[in-house]
Amino acid sequence: MTQPRTADAIEPFHAIELSQLAQKMRAAGAPVIHMEFGQPSEGAPAGAVAAAQQVLSSGDMLGYWESAALRERISRHYRAAYGVDVAPRRIVLTCGASPALVLALLTGFRAGSRVMTARPGYVAYRNSLRALEMTPIEIACGANDRFQIAARHIREAAPAPDGLIVASPANPTGTIIPPHELAEIAAACRERGVRIISDEIYHRLSYGIETQSILNHDDDAFVINSFSKYYGMPGWRLGWVICPEALVDAARARAGNLFLSPPALSQHAALAAFDCEPELDARVDVYRRNRERLLATLADLGITDIAPSDGAFYVYASIAHLTDDSMAFCKRLLADTALATAPGIDFDPVNGHRFIRFSYALSAELVEEACRRLTDWFRSGAAGDARAPA
Amino acid sequence: MTQPRTADAIEPFHAIELSQLAQKMRAAGAPVIHMEFGQPSEGAPAGAVAAAQQVLSSGDMLGYWESAALRERISRHYRAAYGVDVAPRRIVLTCGASPALVLALLTGFRAGSRVMTARPGYVAYRNSLRALEMTPIEIACGANDRFQIAARHIREAAPAPDGLIVASPANPTGTIIPPHELAEIAAACRERGVRIISDEIYHRLSYGIETQSILNHDDDAFVINSFSKYYGMPGWRLGWVICPEALVDAARARAGNLFLSPPALSQHAALAAFDCEPELDARVDVYRRNRERLLATLADLGITDIAPSDGAFYVYASIAHLTDDSMAFCKRLLADTALATAPGIDFDPVNGHRFIRFSYALSAELVEEACRRLTDWFRSGAAGDARAPA
Repeated sequence: MTQPRTADAIEPFHAIELSQLAQKMRAAGAPVIHMEFGQPSEGAPAGAVAAAQQVLSSGDMLGYWESAALRERISRHYRAAYGVDVAPRRIVLTCGASPALVLALLTGFRAGSRVMTARPGYVAYRNSLRALEMTPIEIACGANDRFQIAARHIREAAPAPDGLIVASPANPTGTIIPPHELAEIAAACRERGVRIISDEIYHRLSYGIETQSILNHDDDAFVINSFSKYYGMPGWRLGWVICPEALVDAARARAGNLFLSPPALSQHAALAAFDCEPELDARVDVYRRNRERLLATLADLGITDIAPSDGAFYVYASIAHLTDDSMAFCKRLLADTALATAPGIDFDPVNGHRFIRFSYALSAELVEEACRRLTDWFRSGAAGDARAPA
Repeated sequence: MTQPRTADAIEPFHAIELSQLAQKMRAAGAPVIHMEFGQPSEGAPAGAVAAAQQVLSSGDMLGYWESAALRERISRHYRAAYGVDVAPRRIVLTCGASPALVLALLTGFRAGSRVMTARPGYVAYRNSLRALEMTPIEIACGANDRFQIAARHIREAAPAPDGLIVASPANPTGTIIPPHELAEIAAACRERGVRIISDEIYHRLSYGIETQSILNHDDDAFVINSFSKYYGMPGWRLGWVICPEALVDAARARAGNLFLSPPALSQHAALAAFDCEPELDARVDVYRRNRERLLATLADLGITDIAPSDGAFYVYASIAHLTDDSMAFCKRLLADTALATAPGIDFDPVNGHRFIRFSYALSAELVEEACRRLTDWFRSGAAGDARAPA
């Protein structure tokens, strides 16, 4: 028997451990505020829920199905939002962005392929690459690079990687790659034959800087996106991959075998979600105010070493002056204030023990209350004690 | 850039091409009967739909979530149905049986691993293995072996494979591995260090022969199952993997990174589906009668070389006396009678051009009508002409 792969270092999400502690506290009556996960708290927009209810009432049998109407609608969105033409057949619907990444990797790369990612970055890039026996090439990206891959990283890599995953706005930082730099990255990849996967799951969540699609610069990139963030439908498990024209058939054959089809009811609801933009944009306005409130509070508390939070709904802050064990810090914060956050170690195994991530995709009232708790906790001196075991 | 994997022979499902032709005919007004896909036509049971409606009305935000209650309920089912103890944490919920297979393969095996499967068999075994750069070892299984892997195949293999996928009841044949033979297979795998993946997606759909779980014989096997067949919820995309105790953590870490979480609403509905057994068992009674009706009709038409259709909802029949091009035969049958079926080539690239698969997971009325059309078509002499291009 081949050695099973248990020895591989594929770590679970540490935020899940935090969240389980938080859920226990909530079950015991504590007024927990959940800022540990990257999911909007509002759920699907009303029109999407109504569409799902209507389909359920209609007696539709909900079989294996990929909605041609939804692919068409997504294609129209790319024309309207980015000015790019994407043939609907290039859009493969998946059970969320996570399997979308798996599909892009298995279509565009092989076992052993070397794929560059930014550190800090979403933990599943590293872990999914490893689970598929590809090699993550993590580039330490600090404040000088806005915590993002830059064109020079690609130009200087020796040897050139086979692929690059970019994410803008990024998780955990929220930083956005500006258009001119995205163009430079695409050019560098073209020069060196590097195929791009662009994770655009946080698009439509930005607070000033323009977000372009990689398709504005490279029609041969894979694009990943989903209905989990702006559209507020994380548990509906619906995402998509836009494939390069030459790889559409290969991707579709893989999708059918590996995943069969995406959830049927979610596809009906997602089509309706495109008509809910006023409701969804109003949420983004709340996030914008939450972001300002949280940044102001952190500044008051002396937490000022913060990645440029251009988009998404995250603040990724250095707490190096307070701790070198972000997990212990988050646990202590949770135990003392019922405020759940994510330790930086999920996103950066090297420097993440000195960072914390807040998700502010909550109501204004909850973020206000979270800021009050943080302020009281810091003023009580407890934050300085958090380096001690909770 | 590493060569992308387009050269790999991962074929799409041919039944999808048939189905697309059928959908065009239906759009043009033809009374199409769909026997080409393995999905029950009735949809989710009423109690499951009601539970989903209630959750939607409740305002639940439907976030990233794996239902502990559903894992508990599945665990109880294994105790009741098979007399085996399965700790709930060993049950990983997935977006259907297809990603469940991917998860089992990526947890238990490596690129290059050699995994034995029966031919004919479900096309995704071969194709998913290839997409993950593993090697399918296909064993031609004929009528003498009830179209199933037997213990001697494992004992005689040189070298021993790393893994084995068994499916009982099987797709496309519906044949069941009897308990004594399943025990022998497990013993042979133990002797030779072969890890088993048992696809039990068609359990609870059988017509006489007892179906045991592989867990009755091997607690270190992976079991795959879903709510898509007996429970009638294919488009809800919910399945599960039971992992060997030693690989639970490895599987959970992979599931979180590769797939994140299963659909939330589907988990609520599936929990309710366990309370819908009278409704679901009544469907199985319909399938039982459909099976008898279809077998009798085929016998009348001289189609008697048929795999023992012990379970599932398939009849896999030789049409070698009529054609050596099952795809052309299925297209002609569809064009002439609006009856959609699946060509054997999806399941057996070597001999499948002389086989056809019927799915009878339909109402009794539709199967009755399908039998009438088949009979008329054969009596008109058209079946004999089907070897000519449609």
